[in-house]
Amino acid sequence: MSRIEVTKLKEVSSQILVASGVPTEDAQIITDTILDAHKKGRHSHGIGRLSIYIRKINSGQMNAETIVKTVSQTPIISILDANNGFGQVAAYKGMSNCIKVASEHGIGVATVKNSNSFGSAGYFGEMATKQNMIGVVMGNASPALAPQGGSKAILGTNPICFSFPGTDEHPSIVLDMACSVAARGKIRLAAKNGEKIPLDWAKDADGNPTDDPTLAILGSLNPIGDYKGFGLALVVDIMAGLLSGAAFGGDVKALNTPSGFSNYGHFLAALNPDFFLSRKEYNKRLDYLINNIKYSGETGAIFMPGERSHIQEMQSTDYVDLPSKIIRDINDIALEFQLSEKL
Amino acid sequence: MSRIEVTKLKEVSSQILVASGVPTEDAQIITDTILDAHKKGRHSHGIGRLSIYIRKINSGQMNAETIVKTVSQTPIISILDANNGFGQVAAYKGMSNCIKVASEHGIGVATVKNSNSFGSAGYFGEMATKQNMIGVVMGNASPALAPQGGSKAILGTNPICFSFPGTDEHPSIVLDMACSVAARGKIRLAAKNGEKIPLDWAKDADGNPTDDPTLAILGSLNPIGDYKGFGLALVVDIMAGLLSGAAFGGDVKALNTPSGFSNYGHFLAALNPDFFLSRKEYNKRLDYLINNIKYSGETGAIFMPGERSHIQEMQSTDYVDLPSKIIRDINDIALEFQLSEKL
Repeated sequence: MSRIEVTKLKEVSSQILVASGVPTEDAQIITDTILDAHKKGRHSHGIGRLSIYIRKINSGQMNAETIVKTVSQTPIISILDANNGFGQVAAYKGMSNCIKVASEHGIGVATVKNSNSFGSAGYFGEMATKQNMIGVVMGNASPALAPQGGSKAILGTNPICFSFPGTDEHPSIVLDMACSVAARGKIRLAAKNGEKIPLDWAKDADGNPTDDPTLAILGSLNPIGDYKGFGLALVVDIMAGLLSGAAFGGDVKALNTPSGFSNYGHFLAALNPDFFLSRKEYNKRLDYLINNIKYSGETGAIFMPGERSHIQEMQSTDYVDLPSKIIRDINDIALEFQLSEKL
Repeated sequence: MSRIEVTKLKEVSSQILVASGVPTEDAQIITDTILDAHKKGRHSHGIGRLSIYIRKINSGQMNAETIVKTVSQTPIISILDANNGFGQVAAYKGMSNCIKVASEHGIGVATVKNSNSFGSAGYFGEMATKQNMIGVVMGNASPALAPQGGSKAILGTNPICFSFPGTDEHPSIVLDMACSVAARGKIRLAAKNGEKIPLDWAKDADGNPTDDPTLAILGSLNPIGDYKGFGLALVVDIMAGLLSGAAFGGDVKALNTPSGFSNYGHFLAALNPDFFLSRKEYNKRLDYLINNIKYSGETGAIFMPGERSHIQEMQSTDYVDLPSKIIRDINDIALEFQLSEKL
């Protein structure tokens, strides 16, 4: 790990994106999601991903410019097409729509097709909470989970986020979870480090439990709660993929497979608490709920969803600690593009 | 198990309810949810529960008549008050509203406060799919789950249902899940039978894993995927309890605790797929998704969420197999009320 200035990280990210053909405005959105991930310690969703996007753009399987088209629009529901650009930009525009609509109608919904991975679902959930809205974010992804009774991976780890605006006393609640027991990144890391993984994380290609991360990557990840987690991933595949017009049912292509457009899909919604109860009542009830949970155990032992990330973010306003490998990779790209800045 | 005619089960259920002071129309709704549960083999959510409701009515902690009041109504969102009546009746009216609203606006949302347990969430999800709508149903419940880092049960097992209308080829998808690894009913049954339970189902009151069902009931149930399942239960507590005006944060009282109104809360939504894509396209895509999942393994090995229940229901149009204890209990009630019918 090395300590990097946030302003420098921001500059390098923007420069790389713009050098790759991404419009300045889009580069700002993507860079903000990257900074957010690193500040929260989610380095797997940060600047290290840029090399994958750039390769995909260079191979003609992704567009540097994200021209989000509105396929259809009713007072409540926006159906969007990301034109095979950045998922971050499309999800940002989708959630912006939802928030605007929810402020007037109490709820706003958007779907996005022809997209790519949007990074952390929680980022878009927090877009909602920053506007005092409840956020719902789902994204389908490339195959990782096999159904009970089968061994072939069909559904993605398919992140789900539910977020609830915080109060003066407590930060927003941001549940941002994959439907698998363990993230794929953790298993890849174990493979790289020659480490074994717990037997309940994954199965090999024949459907047998394995502690070998290499066999796990060729097999499937275990969903949380067996059929329940697979069922939740199915909900995401339908809401974000089937309904949106994106790929689904095993057809979403991972960002790093050089085989055409990925066609990820997203589902986004914002719900306005003011349509349910007064803001004062909401705040009072949320504080009561959080206090009942947090103070049911020893002080400092219980954290709400998103609270640890929030604490880490508050401590990372000026600097973030980045893994050395990410820094080397990014500096290689900076050199290649002959940028004025590097990490 | 004994084989009982569905028509008889229906008659006995209706007679008991009406004898308890439940209006005929409400008794029909509640009886239909009871028949549905038994046809699907979910005997824990069936007629056996009537004795609990009757005790609660007799003790003045529940109203036999469910006068559902509309607290507020916008074009999309209904805020309802069940007046401490039956959750089944209130959720039925809530979902009926959602379906009507979604047919015009694409989405309808309802919350219910001052309610009681509504039985199976899936019943109300299927109300939506029968009208070609996507259903979302959440209900909070009495404390069962402790947060990571704590040992005190605060949140309920909090059922979540997502349902999607089926096609000519496949029945509806109905994911109806609690946020716990195992249902509380299974643990109670093990205690009754003097059996041990798997160590990953529950913890004792000190937060240690236990295989003793009696200690588990005094402790807490494990959520699926640790913090993820607790997080999902939290989402339900906020959507169904905090927002609706119902009890939440550990304050929902179990039906069988003689300590006042239970004040369960429900959250219901219907989403109209026609606002996203054509019916023809929806059907084609759903068949493709289901076939990709089901035919990824050996024939007959993989089931979609709700499929087993659907098969059992199709085989139970005239008769259902009921556990003998339920029959004895119900016949005791029938005798007590001097009904013309018994099981």
